[in-house]
Parts: sequence; structure tokens; C-alpha cells
Amino acid sequence: MVTSSRVLAADLPRHVGDPVCLAGWVHRLRQLKSVAFLVLRDRSGLAQVVVPPDTALPAETVVEVRGVVTENAQAPDGVELTRPSITLLSEPAVTPPFDLYRPELSATLPTILDHASIALRHPKARARFAVAAAGVSGFRSTLDGCGFTEIHTPKIVGSATESGANVFELDYFGRRAYLAQSPQLFKQAMVGVFERVYEVGPVFRAEPHDTARHLAQYTSLDAEFGFIEDHRDVMALLREVLAGMTAAIAERVPGVALPRVPAEIPVLHFAEAQEMLGRDDPDLAPEHERSLSDWAKRTHDSEFLFVTGYPSRKRPFYTHPEPDRPGYTNSFDLLFRGLELVTGGQRLHRHADYLTALAERGMDAGPYRGYLDTFAHGMPPHGGFAIGLERWVARVLGLDNVRYTTLFPRDLHRLSP
Amino acid sequence: MVTSSRVLAADLPRHVGDPVCLAGWVHRLRQLKSVAFLVLRDRSGLAQVVVPPDTALPAETVVEVRGVVTENAQAPDGVELTRPSITLLSEPAVTPPFDLYRPELSATLPTILDHASIALRHPKARARFAVAAAGVSGFRSTLDGCGFTEIHTPKIVGSATESGANVFELDYFGRRAYLAQSPQLFKQAMVGVFERVYEVGPVFRAEPHDTARHLAQYTSLDAEFGFIEDHRDVMALLREVLAGMTAAIAERVPGVALPRVPAEIPVLHFAEAQEMLGRDDPDLAPEHERSLSDWAKRTHDSEFLFVTGYPSRKRPFYTHPEPDRPGYTNSFDLLFRGLELVTGGQRLHRHADYLTALAERGMDAGPYRGYLDTFAHGMPPHGGFAIGLERWVARVLGLDNVRYTTLFPRDLHRLSP
Repeated sequence: MVTSSRVLAADLPRHVGDPVCLAGWVHRLRQLKSVAFLVLRDRSGLAQVVVPPDTALPAETVVEVRGVVTENAQAPDGVELTRPSITLLSEPAVTPPFDLYRPELSATLPTILDHASIALRHPKARARFAVAAAGVSGFRSTLDGCGFTEIHTPKIVGSATESGANVFELDYFGRRAYLAQSPQLFKQAMVGVFERVYEVGPVFRAEPHDTARHLAQYTSLDAEFGFIEDHRDVMALLREVLAGMTAAIAERVPGVALPRVPAEIPVLHFAEAQEMLGRDDPDLAPEHERSLSDWAKRTHDSEFLFVTGYPSRKRPFYTHPEPDRPGYTNSFDLLFRGLELVTGGQRLHRHADYLTALAERGMDAGPYRGYLDTFAHGMPPHGGFAIGLERWVARVLGLDNVRYTTLFPRDLHRLSP
Repeated sequence: MVTSSRVLAADLPRHVGDPVCLAGWVHRLRQLKSVAFLVLRDRSGLAQVVVPPDTALPAETVVEVRGVVTENAQAPDGVELTRPSITLLSEPAVTPPFDLYRPELSATLPTILDHASIALRHPKARARFAVAAAGVSGFRSTLDGCGFTEIHTPKIVGSATESGANVFELDYFGRRAYLAQSPQLFKQAMVGVFERVYEVGPVFRAEPHDTARHLAQYTSLDAEFGFIEDHRDVMALLREVLAGMTAAIAERVPGVALPRVPAEIPVLHFAEAQEMLGRDDPDLAPEHERSLSDWAKRTHDSEFLFVTGYPSRKRPFYTHPEPDRPGYTNSFDLLFRGLELVTGGQRLHRHADYLTALAERGMDAGPYRGYLDTFAHGMPPHGGFAIGLERWVARVLGLDNVRYTTLFPRDLHRLSP
């Protein structure tokens, strides 16, 4: 097994004087006058190998290099590999369509996406997905610590989850079916079983618009739990989850500038926000979200802001109303750096309330019968939230397009690679 | 917040003499001559509450119960709640279609599945999914400990992943697309980025057969890693993963009888297996898998058996051939208690080998161009495996139908709830 005797690039400084075996990709070959350096890339980082000046190895060729670890103050990490013998583990590689060794990938977004599996090898591209993996790990460990259970729910459904719009239609053994837009109805049902559940999985939206924020598939981090007082319990949990996610990134991906999650995230009611903005529309446009975010930063020194109480008519039918304020709801959006990042709230939990809510919206209860049955059989007050993983990572890293934080994006025009 | 002052049923013995607040579902109301017992169910277990004999509360009603924790040697765990005051948190519940308090759910499978969100509340049904969650957690933590990175790949693809058969077809903005049958091609591409990756996610098979083993959607635990010698490295990793999964279940769900994962799982080459069975067909039927499993148990005292070297023509085009044995491959199946549970092996890693393999099978390389490009740009020897979560849990728990370990199964006939 190659791996058994293999040393990772990042561990070289602990092996000075030893003969070792490295394995990885030819990241770069630097020809100087009397010597050449092979920069080898593996999953841990880069290592410098001193090779004869006539060495010819195309970038991205996979090699195994045996040599001696030698101190050299000029080398990265103070060590390099000398007296190497090189074995090819792949064919000599075809030259990539862009230089992976440069500090930034200089190619257009379409070129990067057309060659995603190669572009993702760039250390900066790769790092984004290490951040995503660490964030998801923090999401799970925070919720595991609070007694949550992980679930896996159907992605193929017989009726559209929340509304009829923007769903992908499917031929299901000759019947019509849809791709789930969210695990909403299933995760609520599972509150009746486990009280506290979460799911990390794909959700699907047939977004007809070509924007920097929307994709046809993204990874939704969903949580739902019972025995709450109202939406404020959901917001308190979300705060813990966000703190857990950033802590996990700090631990596993050093060097990322992370937002501070305040002990108390400021809260603004939708009606107050409208008053501040001098508007009376039932929704917030992107520029309003930016303006509110600025306000939170200015007055509370917080990059996060909860806007609560969104009007009923802008929220799905399962949203719990605000008891003392007709027309408003126990729901929230979390704004982060000017963008809506998380949506959540308290849900209805009484069967009769569901029937009323559907009737008020002129919606047919028929397709929801199986879902509604759950509430006839006893459900506690409950609520939850959903975080869009790729959007969250993009915002944390200051990237302006969610395609940079999605391995193989799916959109109006793109279905491959 | 209800939860802030709430005590869980399992924690009652630590609160003897204290006034506490419980919350949960009416699991059962037992009327005796002069007294009645309300058995309350929450996420931690059951608690007994002494209530007046005239108490009327339908099963599954959600209640909050304040009372005093009192020792009673006759009560479960030696404690019960006395002097209770009960508040309803839901409407009085509609009676479930089956008794959830009985040791076993006595209903037919169709009835259970029609009312899945209620049936899953049964402690034994629920426990299966606690086992699944713990197993997945063990899968991840084992791989995290080996330097793997979690990924999320597209479930909508432009061409069928491995073969044209049994794929669900989708209308993708007016184009034809498919649901991914596995993350195979993506996880291989990501070996070029992270060397070691895993994914836990849904996969989709339009299985035209109605069996106890197949569903249209299941949860695939996928791992793939580079810099291996051959498939034996993959088998060694799989053994660690299985040990990690069972250890996590033992820790998080006490009382489950778990299989012992031997330090060395016995290995039988396909050709030897055929000889033992006295056959020369290129595949193993279910009865042959059972017979081989029996052999492993008898001769090696192992419930697990690796069968290696499956014939090329029965394996996908990306399977690496066995170097010294033409017609056979560096692939394996893991049999567990008579059933194939995991498939894996070494993959091709040279671009030219892919072109040859596709040509030999008369397959058009066109749809795979994006995938094949990855190999032209340098890929190490690599391999991996995929575990079907629901099938694995069913087998561990001795259940004969994968529908018992799937929250909301999707099959030829069932698209809801």
C-alpha cells in the first residue's frame, strides 16, 4: 500500500534527515539555472523537491517521490526533499486549461465550471469546500449535543412541498412526481417521533432566473424541534448552531477570517423595519436587507440581524401567527452581511389551524392529507430553520456567487459536468 | 421556553422528591380500580404518572405534566410522578390506527406505511432510526479520523451514471435529465481534489421490481480514496468503517445485539467461490450468497465475507482489472448474513484505460467526456465503496424488509406519505 509508507507534505519537518516517500500531484516545476524544483501537492499541502535541471514532468502528473528530507532555510517550511527518485503513478498529464500554481485562478467563471474537477484542485478553490465540510460538521455536532437525531427523508414526492411553483417534474413509473423543494413536511412529522431532528441533504428548485444566489440544487441544513414556547427558542438554537459552525471551521481550517457570532443577535420586528425604512410593502427587497444589515452593524456592532414577524401572506401556510399582532407571524429571517441567509420560525401544530390556514389561502387540503394526519394525532408546539450551505459559505468567505461554493453547480443552463 | 424547565423521563430518578415538569405524548392510560396511570412518552423514554381514575386523555395527546417525583418500587425505574397537574399542548388526539403501547406494532406493512409518521412513534420502530443515525455518525467519524473530507454532489445529471437502465427521467428546464444512481463519477473526480472523500446522500433507482431489498430512493454511504495499492486497501478501510459504525451504535443505542466485525474479514476469490459452489455462471444468485455466508460462519466464525475478483463483464466499465488474472477484476462484494451489503473495488485511473474499457463494451465515450477529462489531468490509483444504509440497518437488526428501516419508503407503488 503506497499510503502505508507515505509521508504527507505537511509532516516533512518532523522527518529531517530521514528517507521518506511522498506522493501527490506535480503542482509546478520551476526551472532555475543549475537546478529545478518540483513542487508537489498532496491533501496536506505543498512540498519542495530538488530535481535535476532537465526534469520534464507536466503539471498534474501524479508521482511518488522517494528522497531524503533536508533542512533548507530558503524552502517552504524550512525543508525540502533531496536525492529524489520519481515514479509516475499516472500517465504524464495533459496540461490544465489554467495554471493551478498561481495565487488566483485566472479564468472566467464558465471556464472554471466547464473544468470543475480540475479547477477545484486549486488550493483556494479546494479550501472553500474544506470550510463547507467543517461547517456541516459543526452543525451536526452542535445539534447532536442538544439531543437531536439525524434523519433522511424522501426527495421524490407526490405533490409539491410548499407551493406549486418552481418544482422539477419527474416520470415516476408512469406517474407524475416532483423533486422535494425542502424536507419541511417530513421534518415536522419527525418531531412527533424524535422531538428534535436535523437533516443535511439536497433540495431542488426549478429557479427560472439566472442569478448569483440561486441554483437548481443546493444543500439544505434543516433542523426542527418540539416543545418550544415560540420562534424565539428557534432563534436561540440557531445562534448556538452558527457559533458551533464557525468554531468548527476555526478548528479545522486555520486562517479563515470568520464572523463573530454575538451572544445575543439583535432582533428587529418586520413592522419596525418597515417604519425605519419608511415603507409599507409586505416584503423586503435586497437593498432593504442591506440597509438593515448596515443598521445592525452600526448600532449593535453585529454582522447578524434577526428580522421577525414577517407578514402571513408572505410566509408558507404552516407558519404560526403572531398571537397579539394580527397579520404578522412567529417567523424570522436571519440577515448576514446584507443577505438573507436562514429562514425559520414557529409552525402551526394544531390540526384545525392547518385546515383554517389552507382554506384562508384558497388551497386544497387534499394533497396534504397524509401530512395533516400527523397533526390530528398529537403534535407539540414546534419550529425550525433551514440554512443554505453554499450560500452561507459564500457569504462567510466574501464570494459574490454561490457557484464558487458549489462543487458542480446546476442552473438554468448548466447540467454538466 | 417549555424545554428550559422541563425534565426528561429518563432523568426522573435523579429528581426524587422534587417538583418537576414533564412534557410528551400520552403513550397509554391504564385504568385500575382506584387509580389510573398515565404513561408519558418523550424522546428519552417513558414515565409513569399517577392520575385520578376518571382521567380521560386519548392516546398521543401532547401534554405537559407538573408533579412531584416519588419513589415507588413497583414503578418503571423505581419512580413515578404524583400529584400531577396536566396541561394540554395539543388538541385531544385522534386515536391512532394501531396501539403504540403494545410491545409490537400489530398491523400489516401497508397500514404501517400508510400511517408512517404515527407508526414511527412506536419505540421499536423509532429505535431503528436511532440505530441508523448512530451508524452514519460512526461512518463519518471513522473517515474524518482518516483524513477524509465530506462532499455534496449533484443529484441531477445530464447522462445516466453507470448504465442507461433504471434511471428516473426529469424535465430540466425543457431538457432531458436524470436522477443520479450514485455519486460514483463525482466522488472519483473529487479524489483528484481531496484524495479522500465521502458522501452521505440519496441515490435513485427506478427499480421495476417489487422486492424486500430494493427501493426507488435509498441513502448511500459512499467513500473513495486515492494512493492505494489495490482493492485490498479499500477492503481494509471498509473493515475499519464497519467497526466504527457498530461501535457508534453500541455507544449511542444501548441494548442492540450487534455483529462482531473480525479483525480480519475472510476473503474468497470469485473463482474459488464458483469452484466451491460447483458452478461456472458469471454471477452469484441470492442462494449462493447465503451458502457462502454459511461457509464463512462455519469455517472462520465470521458473519462477514469478502468475495473478490468478480468477472469484468458483471462489473461497471470503471472497474480495475485483476492484473494477473484476465477476465477478473480488483473488485469485491461484502456479504453479511447471507446478503450482499457493500460493493466496492479499485477503479481505473488512466485515461487511456477508460477509452479502452468503454470501447470494449461498445459504449459511447461522448456522454462521459467531462468525467474522462479528469483522468487525462492526472489521477492516482484509487478505489472506494458504497454501503446502502437502510439495507445495512435492516440486516443488523434482523428485519426482512428494507421498508422497516426507511422513514417514508418510495417504491413502484408508493409515493406517499
